[in-house]
This record gives sequence, structure tokens and C-alpha cells, in this order.
Amino acid sequence: MDEKELLHNAPIGVFDSGVGGLTVAREIMRQLPNERIVYFGDTARVPYGSKSHETITRYSRQIVRFLRTQDVKAIVIACNSASAAALETLEEEIELPIIDVVRPGARTALSATKNGKIGVIATEATINSGIYKRYIEEHNKTFSVVGKACPLFVPLVEEGLWEDPVTDEIAGRYLSELIDIGIDTLILGCTHYPLIRSAIGRIMGEEVRLVNPAYETARALKKLLEKKGLESEKRPALGTELYRFFVSDSADKFQKFANSIIPYGILSAKAVNIEDY
Amino acid sequence: MDEKELLHNAPIGVFDSGVGGLTVAREIMRQLPNERIVYFGDTARVPYGSKSHETITRYSRQIVRFLRTQDVKAIVIACNSASAAALETLEEEIELPIIDVVRPGARTALSATKNGKIGVIATEATINSGIYKRYIEEHNKTFSVVGKACPLFVPLVEEGLWEDPVTDEIAGRYLSELIDIGIDTLILGCTHYPLIRSAIGRIMGEEVRLVNPAYETARALKKLLEKKGLESEKRPALGTELYRFFVSDSADKFQKFANSIIPYGILSAKAVNIEDY
Repeated sequence: MDEKELLHNAPIGVFDSGVGGLTVAREIMRQLPNERIVYFGDTARVPYGSKSHETITRYSRQIVRFLRTQDVKAIVIACNSASAAALETLEEEIELPIIDVVRPGARTALSATKNGKIGVIATEATINSGIYKRYIEEHNKTFSVVGKACPLFVPLVEEGLWEDPVTDEIAGRYLSELIDIGIDTLILGCTHYPLIRSAIGRIMGEEVRLVNPAYETARALKKLLEKKGLESEKRPALGTELYRFFVSDSADKFQKFANSIIPYGILSAKAVNIEDY
Repeated sequence: MDEKELLHNAPIGVFDSGVGGLTVAREIMRQLPNERIVYFGDTARVPYGSKSHETITRYSRQIVRFLRTQDVKAIVIACNSASAAALETLEEEIELPIIDVVRPGARTALSATKNGKIGVIATEATINSGIYKRYIEEHNKTFSVVGKACPLFVPLVEEGLWEDPVTDEIAGRYLSELIDIGIDTLILGCTHYPLIRSAIGRIMGEEVRLVNPAYETARALKKLLEKKGLESEKRPALGTELYRFFVSDSADKFQKFANSIIPYGILSAKAVNIEDY
């Protein structure tokens, strides 16, 4: 295998604070079936959404150093909090192509809105960063963006209450101000939220378009790989490891949750001491 | 000041995964007003309750190394998950007196129960460890202990829903099996839970005794200091720092929450890079 072929066959590095980024990995598997993936979930330090930008940036740097040991050809920050906190720093520091989840979702919202009123729901870290608001308002000054932090959504998702009156009640409280404002587009700005998309949709009503950045992120990755000539041209042979999963805490619990999100089956996950990177 | 006086005046090191341990620190302040406290909250890696024993033990070791740089005379593990995972390891590795939150709470339950049926509510890490059950059943083989993990309680407390129908609804679901079993004593086996004691009390009814290990932990600490001749004999002079707070993430958010728990006012908290210890 020559060097060019090696590079084409190199995996995409995808990382998240835990399991939420699997919704992004799933979209990459769907849209780019020829690509290998190395996924890292920082389950020993999850969640990121309630933590400071400095801490999230330090963690993201360690993860990128780990992913580089796996010879990845590109990196996907499959976590809104990490994208909001660390994207600019990582882009300055490394020469690998990087895709985040914020810009693709923001671009979709920009083209989807009709009345120019866009809502963003996300973790505290993402909302406090103001990243969606800044990105969208830079592209269209007449649009207004209102963000709302929803700290209970991640624990509710992880407790499995995807279809539950408690989740509906909490969603109703978080979303009421966005309904009052009359937004017509709502960005699901945390990778866990697509799992309670139905509850959010019931509260917002059919008129409001829900944007799932995972879909747009996979599309953006596809374009980037084509532009850089990095795409894998054929599906790796059977028996080779297409998808590999690493976590910073114990692998058992991750596998259980992961298998409820990824239909392809997660054969194994390995624990990594991420503080060493 | 001679060496003995220096030791008497040394602070107690108290640590937790985040803010929950402040309910224990508060009890120590009440019951041992002459003692200085150095509190460490691992806010960059909180929560511990959903993580593995190996990871929690690694984190606890780092924190103890940090607390030793502050010349503490004793250590209080003010976190049930850390007590369950790391107490035995820490006791083997260091010669400082250590108090945990599990054994004092278990002892109270042992003497409080009349029908020998004891419930424990706690994080997944604490429940999976079986530590309360083991400790109580070792002391009285005829007693039965039933544990129930309540993963949503910590996020609900941190979201401020201490008095809220959603908290009552979730508490009702978690606690129903303990009511069905007919327990007469319930250990609040996570340092966050005393903050929703009213909700838990409403569900369990007046017949069930709620045990708050924070109170018993402070009492056990007092006895231990007396036994070892380590107690501070007079209240430190005004102007000296009685209580110091350290956190691994940003100090701002910690101070806000801490001030809602500690009536004495938290003048300042400092950020520490705990991975360096």
C-alpha cells in the first residue's frame, strides 16, 4: 500500500465528552459508509456542558493528542460544548482538517428560517459562549438568535426518559420563552438532544423547524474530504476494524448505551487514561 | 508556636466531587467551630456517581496528594461515591486519620431501625459498590438492606428544583419499591440528597426515619480528633483564614452554589489543576 492509499484509508477521529457524539458518528456511518472511524468518549470527565472553557479546552487538547496516536486524517468535534470552547484553539494548533458541529448546524438554520428568529437549545457552556448567536448574526445582521440552556436534558436522556411526561414537563418549561418569541427554527445544539426530538417537537409544534447538526456535520465532513482528496474510495475489507471506540472511564457502561444508539453494533470499547496525553 | 500547637491548628481536609460535600463541611462548621477547613471540590470532573471505581480511586488519590500540600491533620471524604470506591485504598496508602461518610451513616441506621429493614438511596457508583449493605449486614445479619440508585436527584438539586413537582414525581418513582418493602429507615447516601430531604420525606411518610450521614460524620470526626489529641482548642483569631475552598474548574460558579448552602459566606475559592497532583 503506498503512502497516498494509507492516507485515504486512515480513520476519521470523532470525539465527544461521552456518548452524545455517537449521534454524530451514526450520521457519518450512514453518509460516509467507506470511512473508518476512531471514536473517543471522555466518560471519566463527562459532562463538559457545565464546565468552564479553559477546562474544556484542556480536555479537548488531550483528546486530540490521543487521536493523533491513532493516525487519523481528520477530526470531528462531535460535541457542541467542546466546539464552542476549543474549536478556535485547536484550529490554530493543529494542521489536520477539523469539522465542528456548530458551524454546520448554524448554516442550516440560516437557510431554513423564514422570519429570521432562530432559537438555540444547548448546555450552559455552549449558550454562555454565544457561538451560535455570533456565527448566525455575522452572516445575517437582521436575524435574531435566542439561546436557552437546558441542563436537565442530558441527565433525562441518559436516564432513558426519551418518551416520558417528566421530559415533556421540563421541555415545556425550558422552551416556553422561545415559543413566546415566535422562533420558526430551533437548533438542537447538544448531541444528546436529537434523542428527545419527539418531545421537543411536541412542545414547539409542527410550524417550527428542528435542526439536527449531526446530519449537517456529516455532510460537511463529506465535502471537506472530497475537497482535500482524502476520501476513502472503497469500503474496507471485511474482517478489518471499521469502527473503533475508546473511552476514558470503564468500557462496559459505554458499550451498553452506545449499542442503544448505533445500529451497527459496537463490538468493543477500550479504556484509555486520557490524563496521560 | 511549637510543633504540637501547629498540629492542633492544622486544618481538616474535606473533599467531594463538587458541591455536595458542602453539606458535610457545613455540619463540621456547626459542630466543630474551632476547626479550620480546607475544602476541595473536583468540579472539573464532577460527577463521580456515574463513574467506575478505578477512575474515582485515581481522582481521590490526586486530591489527597493536593490536600497534603495544605498540611491537613485529617481527611474527610465528604462524598459517598468516593468513600465507596476509594476509602480502603486510601486507608492503606496514607497514615493520616480518615473519616468517610458511609460508616457513620450506616452506624446511625443500625441503631435507628426497629424492623431491621433499611433502605439506601445513592448514586450508581455507591449502590453498585454494595458498601452500605455489606457494612450493615456485617454488624447485624438479621437486618436487610435494599439500595436504590437515583441518578436524576443530583441534576435536579443542581438545577435548584428543591421544592418542585418534578422532583416529587421522580422521587415517587425511585422510592416506590422501598415503600413496598416496608423499610423504616432510609439513608440519604449522597451528599446532595439532604437538600431535597423535604421531598423525600413527603414520599416516604413520617414513619420512616431519614438518616443524613453529614451529621454523623461531623460527630465521628469530633470523636476521632479527641481520641488522637488533635483537636483545635481555641477558635482561630479573627482575620485568619478559617475556611479555604479549592476547585478544579472555574471558581465563579462554585462560589454561587456554595453560598446557597454555607451560611458563613465563602469569601473566595481558588482553581487548582488537579491532574498535576
